[in-house]
Amino acid sequence: MALKIALLPGDGVGPEVLAQAVKCLEAVEETFNQHFIFKEAPVGAIAIDKKGTPLPDATLKLCKESDAVLFGAIGDPKYDNDPDAKVRPEQGLLQLRKELGLFANIRPVLSHPTLLDKSPLKKKVINGTDFVIYRELTGGIYFGEKKLNDDGTKASDLCEYTEDEISRIAHLAFKAAKGRKKKLTLIDKANVLESSRLWRKVVTKIGESYPEVALDFMFVDNAAMQIILNPKQFDVILTENMFGDIISDEGSVIGGSIGLLASASIGEENALFEPIHGSYPQAKGKNIANPIASILSAAMLLEHFGLTEEAWAVKKAVDKSLKKGVVTPDLKENSQYGTNQVGDFIAHNI
Amino acid sequence: MALKIALLPGDGVGPEVLAQAVKCLEAVEETFNQHFIFKEAPVGAIAIDKKGTPLPDATLKLCKESDAVLFGAIGDPKYDNDPDAKVRPEQGLLQLRKELGLFANIRPVLSHPTLLDKSPLKKKVINGTDFVIYRELTGGIYFGEKKLNDDGTKASDLCEYTEDEISRIAHLAFKAAKGRKKKLTLIDKANVLESSRLWRKVVTKIGESYPEVALDFMFVDNAAMQIILNPKQFDVILTENMFGDIISDEGSVIGGSIGLLASASIGEENALFEPIHGSYPQAKGKNIANPIASILSAAMLLEHFGLTEEAWAVKKAVDKSLKKGVVTPDLKENSQYGTNQVGDFIAHNI
Ligand SMILES: CC(C)[C@H](C(=O)O)[C@@H](O)C(=O)O
Ligand SMILES: CC(C)[C@H](C(=O)O)[C@@H](O)C(=O)O
Repeated sequence: MALKIALLPGDGVGPEVLAQAVKCLEAVEETFNQHFIFKEAPVGAIAIDKKGTPLPDATLKLCKESDAVLFGAIGDPKYDNDPDAKVRPEQGLLQLRKELGLFANIRPVLSHPTLLDKSPLKKKVINGTDFVIYRELTGGIYFGEKKLNDDGTKASDLCEYTEDEISRIAHLAFKAAKGRKKKLTLIDKANVLESSRLWRKVVTKIGESYPEVALDFMFVDNAAMQIILNPKQFDVILTENMFGDIISDEGSVIGGSIGLLASASIGEENALFEPIHGSYPQAKGKNIANPIASILSAAMLLEHFGLTEEAWAVKKAVDKSLKKGVVTPDLKENSQYGTNQVGDFIAHNI
Repeated sequence: MALKIALLPGDGVGPEVLAQAVKCLEAVEETFNQHFIFKEAPVGAIAIDKKGTPLPDATLKLCKESDAVLFGAIGDPKYDNDPDAKVRPEQGLLQLRKELGLFANIRPVLSHPTLLDKSPLKKKVINGTDFVIYRELTGGIYFGEKKLNDDGTKASDLCEYTEDEISRIAHLAFKAAKGRKKKLTLIDKANVLESSRLWRKVVTKIGESYPEVALDFMFVDNAAMQIILNPKQFDVILTENMFGDIISDEGSVIGGSIGLLASASIGEENALFEPIHGSYPQAKGKNIANPIASILSAAMLLEHFGLTEEAWAVKKAVDKSLKKGVVTPDLKENSQYGTNQVGDFIAHNI
């Protein structure tokens, strides 16, 4: 049965990198005799321009009817510095996460043997790093009530969590830890926040059903330090929405480039795969954006549907491009390879 | 006129490191013919043990009557993992900040020429780093309403800011930038949070009165990455309470040890000086904690009261201890010097 994949290129470099991921999936179709049905729809700033809303109904409908969503990137600087903007591209992504119930964002962080030199961190600090972040994605301060008083002098955001929201992602994270190095670290700010104390209570309780997994706790300020001081201490990190946003971008420095990091956003019925990098508007149309994060998102999609061999072939091809130096300029100064050429090389090697 | 200094040693290694800062201030008294009046009071876990509350009235009164507070550290693990604890040591510090109106927490981040090797970051990345973080300290999610529903299945924290809260610290930060490299970066999450959009609006407006300062904006997730990728790009960072907590602990990896970072918390009428490190309970009583952050807090205190020469003498003496390797084990493996010996050496060199 053919997988239905919704393609949401979005803004900035999104379309360019997504095109490379599609190339790779097409190569998978050929090599492994698979069949995917691709359908494309607008989201983000481009959807605002075309349809007046960052998540048009037709786009949402397509996503709901598909087996998975492959997402490019979102965001346009023209909205960032306008505090009075009524619609924002990011709302499209947030609404999509909410509507599809994508409560768990999964972000693997690995050091790449061929890229140890690219990281601002010392080789001995990062070599061998292999952890994965489980970030809660549809709750917390992102979705709590927002208020602005009438004269615009007071604003607030509510960070709210329920036991159920915590518990469903906690189970996923514990299961992941069971199949890995059997360690789970909850990152919170329980010495200050009531919501963090609820996280600690619920996760501690759930931990009792996973006796083989060692559970520890870390305050988010300390965690921001520990991820740089000693990233090898982590196996599975579990955290709430905002802390996960910060910690996972921070973690990207380990791999040598944010252009390498993919993520999966999982719900009960839907799944979305996207690079963790943003829309990188300065690079738009220049054929210089690194397509690897997007391609690895496609690999995560394949894995999600049990297409292990296929996913492995994609990852192997990515490794080859890294080893051979067929990479974009973020990884090799004055590289002659652009987004397209790297995509072609990887697709060709699948 | 003698400065009245309240000493709040607090928990863990707090008393040990604070004692070294006091030694240094005593050396300043001798060398510069100054006079300080020291009075000590309990705060934190130790105050809970003695008085049943982390901030006893007498302690608060002493602080209010003093010209400045010199603070050790706060926190005890026995409270961290108890979601039902009714009182917590940290409340003492938070309440103190609020009661004294300490709205601006100022944290300098510098690379130390003699310690470049100690950082997990590469030399070329950090060499020459010199920025300062202005963290709002009495607002935001730390102090907004906290709720837990009756059956303990739902918890929330409110992040709230007013124009006035933003504006008073923004002015301090712009003034600081004017006297430095004339760049101010506001860290926020304006693409998601209403409160961040208020920050952006207010800071943009205030920026117009400081035309010589270049103002830019950075989302907190990106900032967590940029601080590691390229810390030299920053001059003055301005941010809200929670983001400041995370970003400044993260920034500590640049200096080579969190045991070096001091901070000043400033209000209209009061000022408090403390190391940014915590109570480090594992090291308590072992004479191994690095006293330099506490000693540099004392130097910030001197600077705050215009005692520039005195502050300079303390900083010079700290530099000497670093250069001569008279440092605690966090900075030199198997160092024969303990907290006390380093304190003695520095005091002796003032
Ligand atoms: C674009 C933005 C709203 C988003 C987020 O903060 O979740 C992004 O930073 C991410 O991490 O996917
Ligand atoms: C102890 C804790 C409440 C405090 C904070 O989060 O503000 C500490 O981490 C700090 O940064 O001073």
